[in-house]
Amino acid sequence: VAYHAQRLGIPALIVMPLATPNVKLERTRSFGAEVILHGESVSEAGDLAHKLAAERRLTFVHPYDDPQIIAGQGTVGLEMLQQVPNLDVLVVPVGGGGLISGISLVAKALRPNIQIIGVETRRFPSMLRVMQGQEPECGPFSIAEGIAIKSPGRLTLEIVRQHVDRILLVDEPDIEAAVLMLLEEEKTVAEGAGAVGLAALCCFPEQFAGRQVGIVLSGGNIDLPILSSIIQRGLVSSGRLVQLSLDLRDVPGELARAVESIAGTGANIVQVNHQRIFTELPLQATAVQFVLQTRGTAHITEIIRVLDAAGYPTRVDRAIGVHSP
Amino acid sequence: VAYHAQRLGIPALIVMPLATPNVKLERTRSFGAEVILHGESVSEAGDLAHKLAAERRLTFVHPYDDPQIIAGQGTVGLEMLQQVPNLDVLVVPVGGGGLISGISLVAKALRPNIQIIGVETRRFPSMLRVMQGQEPECGPFSIAEGIAIKSPGRLTLEIVRQHVDRILLVDEPDIEAAVLMLLEEEKTVAEGAGAVGLAALCCFPEQFAGRQVGIVLSGGNIDLPILSSIIQRGLVSSGRLVQLSLDLRDVPGELARAVESIAGTGANIVQVNHQRIFTELPLQATAVQFVLQTRGTAHITEIIRVLDAAGYPTRVDRAIGVHSP
Repeated sequence: VAYHAQRLGIPALIVMPLATPNVKLERTRSFGAEVILHGESVSEAGDLAHKLAAERRLTFVHPYDDPQIIAGQGTVGLEMLQQVPNLDVLVVPVGGGGLISGISLVAKALRPNIQIIGVETRRFPSMLRVMQGQEPECGPFSIAEGIAIKSPGRLTLEIVRQHVDRILLVDEPDIEAAVLMLLEEEKTVAEGAGAVGLAALCCFPEQFAGRQVGIVLSGGNIDLPILSSIIQRGLVSSGRLVQLSLDLRDVPGELARAVESIAGTGANIVQVNHQRIFTELPLQATAVQFVLQTRGTAHITEIIRVLDAAGYPTRVDRAIGVHSP
Repeated sequence: VAYHAQRLGIPALIVMPLATPNVKLERTRSFGAEVILHGESVSEAGDLAHKLAAERRLTFVHPYDDPQIIAGQGTVGLEMLQQVPNLDVLVVPVGGGGLISGISLVAKALRPNIQIIGVETRRFPSMLRVMQGQEPECGPFSIAEGIAIKSPGRLTLEIVRQHVDRILLVDEPDIEAAVLMLLEEEKTVAEGAGAVGLAALCCFPEQFAGRQVGIVLSGGNIDLPILSSIIQRGLVSSGRLVQLSLDLRDVPGELARAVESIAGTGANIVQVNHQRIFTELPLQATAVQFVLQTRGTAHITEIIRVLDAAGYPTRVDRAIGVHSP
């Protein structure tokens, strides 16, 4: 909206929830739009936008529950089918439902047997639950904040009921893993909401096996600190970054000997912490924590074997809340 | 080579230098190739590869100094000109010179007035120096390890002399900045060697202004820990991550008051360190280091103003070796 408003010389006022990624905020402002951050959710931001539109006599543009927005988003499906006409399945992220409404309308028109599968984060399963006649239970937040919507649109709900075959739910760690996989394998930056389609493919492979599958990556507005955290956590969960605790005697030369043992295994030391106070070891012993870059879990096992053999009892410090390998 | 060898059922033995990114090593092995890591440079790895090829009676495939490799790499130029026929300039990374040889041959044949600009890292300016009749002075290492080559090929040198208009050199921080810009603006993962073209565009904008420019991004094999470091360093250099040191009285409640002041500015605290021993402050005072996520340099100035006004003398801890904002 900001981009085209600037291009056409139309002033734009855009209200976004407080938790909007910084990169999205800055980029929107760079296109000359006035941006107001308001509310915990899209619907709270929407309330203020409606109010300001009435006060300032502006045209209100809904992010998804609008026939023209839906039609515009449908062009994604059009382009995908132009490029790969024999798609069996299209997998599409679902927030308010605008994107999947447009895509399913055009895809089913062009190719009636195509399957359209929507994907929501399990923390905001609003479309699925409303379709099942249940109240959506949402929150508290999601890495896929772009589809963290508490209530689907009225128009989009009807279209999804008619044209979408199934909605799948994915969990936060699956979304993180998908963002990382896109980065590492496809060399592509996707935001959490953009990556839920791949997350669904990885979680439910049996539903896609042997079929020609198209996945919509619906956005790349991810803040760099988040992306960096996803990388670090991914390295931990795949065993390529590990924290080991060793018990050492607290005398000169002992650390050098331990570090030499680690060097011999080919692991790269990225951090060293000494713990002398909060330990149950005897005085003059110290627990040393090493953060190491490794080649994976087999390498970690080998490092522990080498350190144990060198006389250093070694433990893996598990990261909390991280996908286990 | 590994990919096609596996596809065609041909055994492949690949020798790479010791500093090869892990992702490249693992990916090559995953295609079934036998990989040997050897030597500090491509030429040392090449020596072993020649020796093993002779011993085991294998066909030697040179990474750049081979007419068929050059022809194959030329297809990149072919595809770019098919998609954008009116290119005025093509910017191509230069290591051994294979890629730019192929691209310049085909591009000049199709469009004689096109300019071909090569880019090397200033740490490995071997093609430029050999063309100028000088000895290459190289090293010690580069983030663009994919083009960190000490000696260009004999074939490629001749082709570059004939068909390449100019070679530009870029520095390590420029390459880092280009990797980050591709990640943030283009949502694309490029390795250091892959991003030197964009680095050259940013360093020498006057050479490209007003012209239709194509940049070859020649690879995305970057290890995730390196990518994460580039992100973190980029956040620091753009002022979006900063470490501030505050002098506090070492009494209960004082930290809470300082943290509240920071919270009021909208900065996010990501780390807190207390420094009681290595400080010149009086006993019962403590220097507290806060690592903060901010919205940029103007935000940092505002945070310091607020903290100073709240009675906390505040200093920015400059990161060493990082591009200044």
